[in-house]
Amino acid sequence: MPPATPPRPAAARWLSTGNSITQQFLAIGGRPDMISLAGGLPAADLYPVAAVAQASQAALARWDGAVLEYGPVEGLPALRAAIARRISAAAGRSFGSENVLLTTGAMQGLDLIGKALIEPGDTVLAQFPTYLGALDAWRPRQPVYERFDWDMDAPGLAAALRCAKFVYAVPNYSNPTGVLVSQKKRSALLDRVVEAGTWLVEDDPYLPLAYDGDAGPSLLAHHGARQPHGPYDGPVIYLGTLSKSLVPGLRVGWVVAEAGMIATLALTKQSTDLSSSMLTQGIALELIESGFEAGHVPTILPHYRARRDALCAALGEHLSEWFEWDVPPGGMFVWLRARRSEIDTDALYAHALAEKVAFVPSSVFDPAGALTSALRLNFTRSSPDLLAEGVRRLARAVRRHLAADAGRAA
Amino acid sequence: MPPATPPRPAAARWLSTGNSITQQFLAIGGRPDMISLAGGLPAADLYPVAAVAQASQAALARWDGAVLEYGPVEGLPALRAAIARRISAAAGRSFGSENVLLTTGAMQGLDLIGKALIEPGDTVLAQFPTYLGALDAWRPRQPVYERFDWDMDAPGLAAALRCAKFVYAVPNYSNPTGVLVSQKKRSALLDRVVEAGTWLVEDDPYLPLAYDGDAGPSLLAHHGARQPHGPYDGPVIYLGTLSKSLVPGLRVGWVVAEAGMIATLALTKQSTDLSSSMLTQGIALELIESGFEAGHVPTILPHYRARRDALCAALGEHLSEWFEWDVPPGGMFVWLRARRSEIDTDALYAHALAEKVAFVPSSVFDPAGALTSALRLNFTRSSPDLLAEGVRRLARAVRRHLAADAGRAA
Repeated sequence: MPPATPPRPAAARWLSTGNSITQQFLAIGGRPDMISLAGGLPAADLYPVAAVAQASQAALARWDGAVLEYGPVEGLPALRAAIARRISAAAGRSFGSENVLLTTGAMQGLDLIGKALIEPGDTVLAQFPTYLGALDAWRPRQPVYERFDWDMDAPGLAAALRCAKFVYAVPNYSNPTGVLVSQKKRSALLDRVVEAGTWLVEDDPYLPLAYDGDAGPSLLAHHGARQPHGPYDGPVIYLGTLSKSLVPGLRVGWVVAEAGMIATLALTKQSTDLSSSMLTQGIALELIESGFEAGHVPTILPHYRARRDALCAALGEHLSEWFEWDVPPGGMFVWLRARRSEIDTDALYAHALAEKVAFVPSSVFDPAGALTSALRLNFTRSSPDLLAEGVRRLARAVRRHLAADAGRAA
Repeated sequence: MPPATPPRPAAARWLSTGNSITQQFLAIGGRPDMISLAGGLPAADLYPVAAVAQASQAALARWDGAVLEYGPVEGLPALRAAIARRISAAAGRSFGSENVLLTTGAMQGLDLIGKALIEPGDTVLAQFPTYLGALDAWRPRQPVYERFDWDMDAPGLAAALRCAKFVYAVPNYSNPTGVLVSQKKRSALLDRVVEAGTWLVEDDPYLPLAYDGDAGPSLLAHHGARQPHGPYDGPVIYLGTLSKSLVPGLRVGWVVAEAGMIATLALTKQSTDLSSSMLTQGIALELIESGFEAGHVPTILPHYRARRDALCAALGEHLSEWFEWDVPPGGMFVWLRARRSEIDTDALYAHALAEKVAFVPSSVFDPAGALTSALRLNFTRSSPDLLAEGVRRLARAVRRHLAADAGRAA
């Protein structure tokens, strides 16, 4: 008999703290009998396939082999410049290419920020509830989280700001809550961040998805306006993406920040993948410069607005006894808060799957995993009819949950 | 006067241990008066631009919006299956899609392996000298390195294997040395790795660039042959890429390993970028399935072989007094070892830049930064004439170095 082989080394410890819920959602997404209101996905039927095909030909004709090379780690220079112009126009002050790093979607921006800034045990002051992807991205760096809920008078906020490596905020149509933060609160947060001397990560993927008027200035624009001349030297590290205005599959996102932070993040990106694809960046550039993107967004908004309204109408009809919500003025999500303490959205999840509807329970948006009184529904991916049917299934799941789990607890 | 703003938090400590040499090379690459023998770049004039353009149209026609989505984190299923078939054919045993994770180039595979396996202070037993990109990728995880030089009788090897999280090896035309490791040594390493119960990371980007005959079985194929039936359950984590056989700009690479390790790396990738671009994976699939890649490699090999021979001829003419080297049977690099102890390749580097030629000094391939007796030259990027001129400049730089620095030391 051969000698027994010793077991091979175990994975790093942070992996055992992870969650597999995103992969579960992806698997559910493939089941035709399931209505998934879980993922944060755009409507695939609105993807401009022909425009992307044309842009890929144009990019190869324009750049030839240069978009088949390893890129500069910071990204295709012409696209960096185009993003700098876009940000400058929105902020009313000048940003240059040195303020822009192109990334594999905004998600890679989160990964790079965590790698570049967080030591194990460092504090992140994160808007609560917190985007699951940010929690995932920073898990390998093992930070400690403090809650931030835009209450500027909260006791302990000043101390938390002073000890935080950075603040993480999603002011536009937040994931998961859909909340649009007021301009007054943005300005107050900036005051406090500058006073404390910390970084402020502004995650802004949903900016284009405004259904009831513009969101107004970003935190970056606010701060930029305070020092309108010279190189930007502020605390805001801004994340944007083409995943919502065009398609996610190009995986083109960007970080905008003061030049020193961009250089630090570029060095970090070099150790991560050497460079993103220049080809997809070249395609993105064509779609921006040709004006296609600017013209495309208004064609998708009516669809998403109608879906949001269909979801909220169905919620009003079937779920208002058990949940409350605000109609989100933009983005992709409606956040349901339970009206009754018997409702536990982790327990509800199993009943929902049995009824063939999926949502995201609130616990995954809580760094401590303890929030079980809310859930997130996506409205951009599904047709109005499917949204209504999904809500009817969810109502049946709530009844099953209350009957089964309340009975068990008694 | 406004109150002084406190300084913002510093970057993570690992960044201060990094090197900026790759970025320096990229900057040098843009200077037309400089001959760069530094980077590990393919010949851009051999990139098949028209074939990529055609493949991008074919991919969009075949997959429509599906390649503009977020992908499954593991990658486009049809490309995973194609890579599994390629690996199975080379290994003479079956690998399935569950053994394949697609990545943003092989570099992302290194990043994911570091994130998934290394805790700060863990040991990596790395083939010495060590690929700079691997050292960069793992820097954020702060491992400790032990040297491995394929001497199977080295004292301490058994102990180092037992305490290592993994072994890192580049058996085919290694970066930086160009060495092709014998099949006997491969087999012996596998014996020791299995005995010790550790992981073995096999980095194999240069496989297609074989100028003097095939490399023979990979470590993965060797180990696979030992258990020819059933799911692969071995210690080898294999990295491959299309960057050398086609173009780097698609950023398509892969990891092949036992299914549990692939699932762990996929969970890690999810926190890194959600997914790589499905579009570039769809393009890669077309270029593989159509047979284009298989036909393209033989068209580039004669060019690279001629460049290797031109470089070695020039070295023989101008540098043999000061350096020795082996003619590499494949890959991209010639590794020059100083014959004289006065030669310090870190000091030589400045003189080389003054003579308008760049190389990579050996110190960056040493985790301790202490190896200053060797240097790496790339021969794939430059024409035979440029290679010869680069070597003449390097010879002048050596003379300046010996005159200046030896005089200073005396």
